[in-house]
Amino acid sequence: MSSNEVNAVLAEHAPAIWKSLSRLGRAAFYPRDIPFQAAQAKATRYNATIGQITDGSGSIVPLPSVRRVLRTLDDDDRNRALLYSPIDGILELRERWHEWQRPDDALPTSLPVVTNGLTHGLSIAADLFGDPGRKVIVGAPFWGNYRQIFEVRTGSELIPAQCFTSQGYRPESLAAALNAIPGSEPAIVILNFPSNPVGYMPSAAERASLIGLLDDAAEKRPVIAICDDAYQGLVYEEGVPRDSLFFDLMGRNDQLVPIRVAGSTKEMVFFGGRVGFLTLPFSPDHEVAVALEDKIRSLIRSAIGSPCSLSQMVLLQALRSDTLTSETHATYDLLAARYRKLKAALACVVDPPFASLPFNSGVFALLELPESLDADRARQSLIADQSTGLVSAQGRYLRIAFCSVAEDDIEELVGRTVLGLRSQVAG
Amino acid sequence: MSSNEVNAVLAEHAPAIWKSLSRLGRAAFYPRDIPFQAAQAKATRYNATIGQITDGSGSIVPLPSVRRVLRTLDDDDRNRALLYSPIDGILELRERWHEWQRPDDALPTSLPVVTNGLTHGLSIAADLFGDPGRKVIVGAPFWGNYRQIFEVRTGSELIPAQCFTSQGYRPESLAAALNAIPGSEPAIVILNFPSNPVGYMPSAAERASLIGLLDDAAEKRPVIAICDDAYQGLVYEEGVPRDSLFFDLMGRNDQLVPIRVAGSTKEMVFFGGRVGFLTLPFSPDHEVAVALEDKIRSLIRSAIGSPCSLSQMVLLQALRSDTLTSETHATYDLLAARYRKLKAALACVVDPPFASLPFNSGVFALLELPESLDADRARQSLIADQSTGLVSAQGRYLRIAFCSVAEDDIEELVGRTVLGLRSQVAG
Repeated sequence: MSSNEVNAVLAEHAPAIWKSLSRLGRAAFYPRDIPFQAAQAKATRYNATIGQITDGSGSIVPLPSVRRVLRTLDDDDRNRALLYSPIDGILELRERWHEWQRPDDALPTSLPVVTNGLTHGLSIAADLFGDPGRKVIVGAPFWGNYRQIFEVRTGSELIPAQCFTSQGYRPESLAAALNAIPGSEPAIVILNFPSNPVGYMPSAAERASLIGLLDDAAEKRPVIAICDDAYQGLVYEEGVPRDSLFFDLMGRNDQLVPIRVAGSTKEMVFFGGRVGFLTLPFSPDHEVAVALEDKIRSLIRSAIGSPCSLSQMVLLQALRSDTLTSETHATYDLLAARYRKLKAALACVVDPPFASLPFNSGVFALLELPESLDADRARQSLIADQSTGLVSAQGRYLRIAFCSVAEDDIEELVGRTVLGLRSQVAG
Repeated sequence: MSSNEVNAVLAEHAPAIWKSLSRLGRAAFYPRDIPFQAAQAKATRYNATIGQITDGSGSIVPLPSVRRVLRTLDDDDRNRALLYSPIDGILELRERWHEWQRPDDALPTSLPVVTNGLTHGLSIAADLFGDPGRKVIVGAPFWGNYRQIFEVRTGSELIPAQCFTSQGYRPESLAAALNAIPGSEPAIVILNFPSNPVGYMPSAAERASLIGLLDDAAEKRPVIAICDDAYQGLVYEEGVPRDSLFFDLMGRNDQLVPIRVAGSTKEMVFFGGRVGFLTLPFSPDHEVAVALEDKIRSLIRSAIGSPCSLSQMVLLQALRSDTLTSETHATYDLLAARYRKLKAALACVVDPPFASLPFNSGVFALLELPESLDADRARQSLIADQSTGLVSAQGRYLRIAFCSVAEDDIEELVGRTVLGLRSQVAG
């Protein structure tokens, strides 16, 4: 397909998506060059299509020092780990992740495309839909890199909606921000649950209200709802729904287009591997999925060539493992114990020099400081005076990453934080 | 530094670069958020800065099924393979690559920044310097992905200069294309030697003439010379210089700014690893290197988060190896034998139904077809009738990737190609 053909499919079958595409999103199409031609020549006896250094039968000729490190992989897997990955990822991995991520009652979705970590998935969404002037609504406090991914890269305008407050989660702030956008121009909404930096997952009632307001907003304009599900599954309170909003948002409204970005970074404790997945709310053979994935392959190929095969093959070993579920439960239990300890320690602070925002999930908790304190100065004092490292955010918050603190250290961490902040309030 | 401060440094100390920066290149700056703050908190006793799942002392808590695959790495290396990489790459790897890539008499350069394969390095250069209307000159025939990286992504205008002909290499075509650009507006030139798809490295005389004409062009306008050195070292003819042009182009002219993109994909036969390196023509502490790397870190973080740690740690094992040089020589010898076989086989074809472009390096050879044949139709017929897979390029060329054909199959590959093309010319 040419760019025109791909665009014609979208204009006809997905007008809301077509209206929402950026300049780059409209220009992108996957050319019929080397990877495409190599796929066509796959069965030839004399295959001289791809510039990979092989033995002449498709197997890599690795350096011995690389081969040695990867000797725990069998020959076939090692070979695949060292050769180029397909642009959209290794098929077996995509299929296994597809199974892994789907709730039982979910509607059909596309086969997830492999991205270089979750940020790359977000960046692909920004490439597709971000343009100068495009409004991107995000619940605040939010992860600072969204500003770089959307605003700096594409020139779109990030609009923080103050959803997370010490009094609770306020989805209506998102609705207000959406309704303030003039006319029927498309909007992007970033939905990050469990959230970074807040560590919050909506209750069933809040979730219903959030879904309802997005549905309403999509009556008026196309809404691209990017579900950043980095912390999928890490929900520590009974009764709080754990599944991604993506599966609830799809199939409701032609103008409401959820896109799922998830991956192994936190779910499989594979931070250094950079394996993420992007999923579209259409069945794999749906013409809109085919057209959008053509554009996505173009965006992957022109930004990073192809995703890392080595990481994909290592992750594949985990996804093939019979014990994967119990292995991820062990991670969950470790984090849940730290969560409970932190929750208890914060609850015990008498007259705290901060308000702690509601948290029930993820790997973070967030403290809102009194107005007399500057969060970044407070952060630096905690390093210098209390040997305690937190992250300051948006001028008034301190973020605690309890995922990187041992359970036994959490009380002391809270104690030192309280001590340090008190002396700063006093000073 | 803020974006304004970074830009002020470039405007003052590198006006040619400042004039050449794109909208995105000017907007990019590395924010002082999580990775920056985590670095400041590195020595704290209670470090809750980064959202990584660790034991509380900075070591990852891996899934057993992932740990098992990586058991050939020692504890420290495995830990680094599974945790986030620094945004600009793992320091020991950058230092070892720096040593690996430098000719003995080279001027000081920046410490290479790790990219997700070479394409990502090219894409960073496109992000920095590509803008709608910006002219990007490339010697033709050229690698098709340049069009996606520069034109599709940034809206710049790719201008092919017919440098590679069956009569020889014509650097003066580049000069003509550069001189045809009006006024003193900045230009980008892509220099890919050994080249894809041609497999050509300039002779000493051609190289001198190429350097001279780039130097001349830079009298009139800033010239950003992107050296795509993917096939570094794979030069099979005696007397043809093997070092990257990057080292010859730096330090000549303030308006001539070479940027080196190289990596392990071909040099270390690590196609699936996606480890590339981007090097700037300034010493590491030069204020222009510091300012540009601030922007580059921003572009990496907002596109892919961070580069893959796992691949970096595997490559590091190779770079630490005492036998690395002999290991890479073995790869070279394998390819050189195939090169000689292909060269000989093509020379023996009586009355060939193509002109073969001069080739002396890299992993490809390129055949120019008679005007009566369409290259893509010829390619499809070769698959169907001769079980022979080649890649068609730019309508009139067929590319032979001899790196993926066994030495013993090369004569037959050439025979079948001749047979197939002859029958098509006759048909």
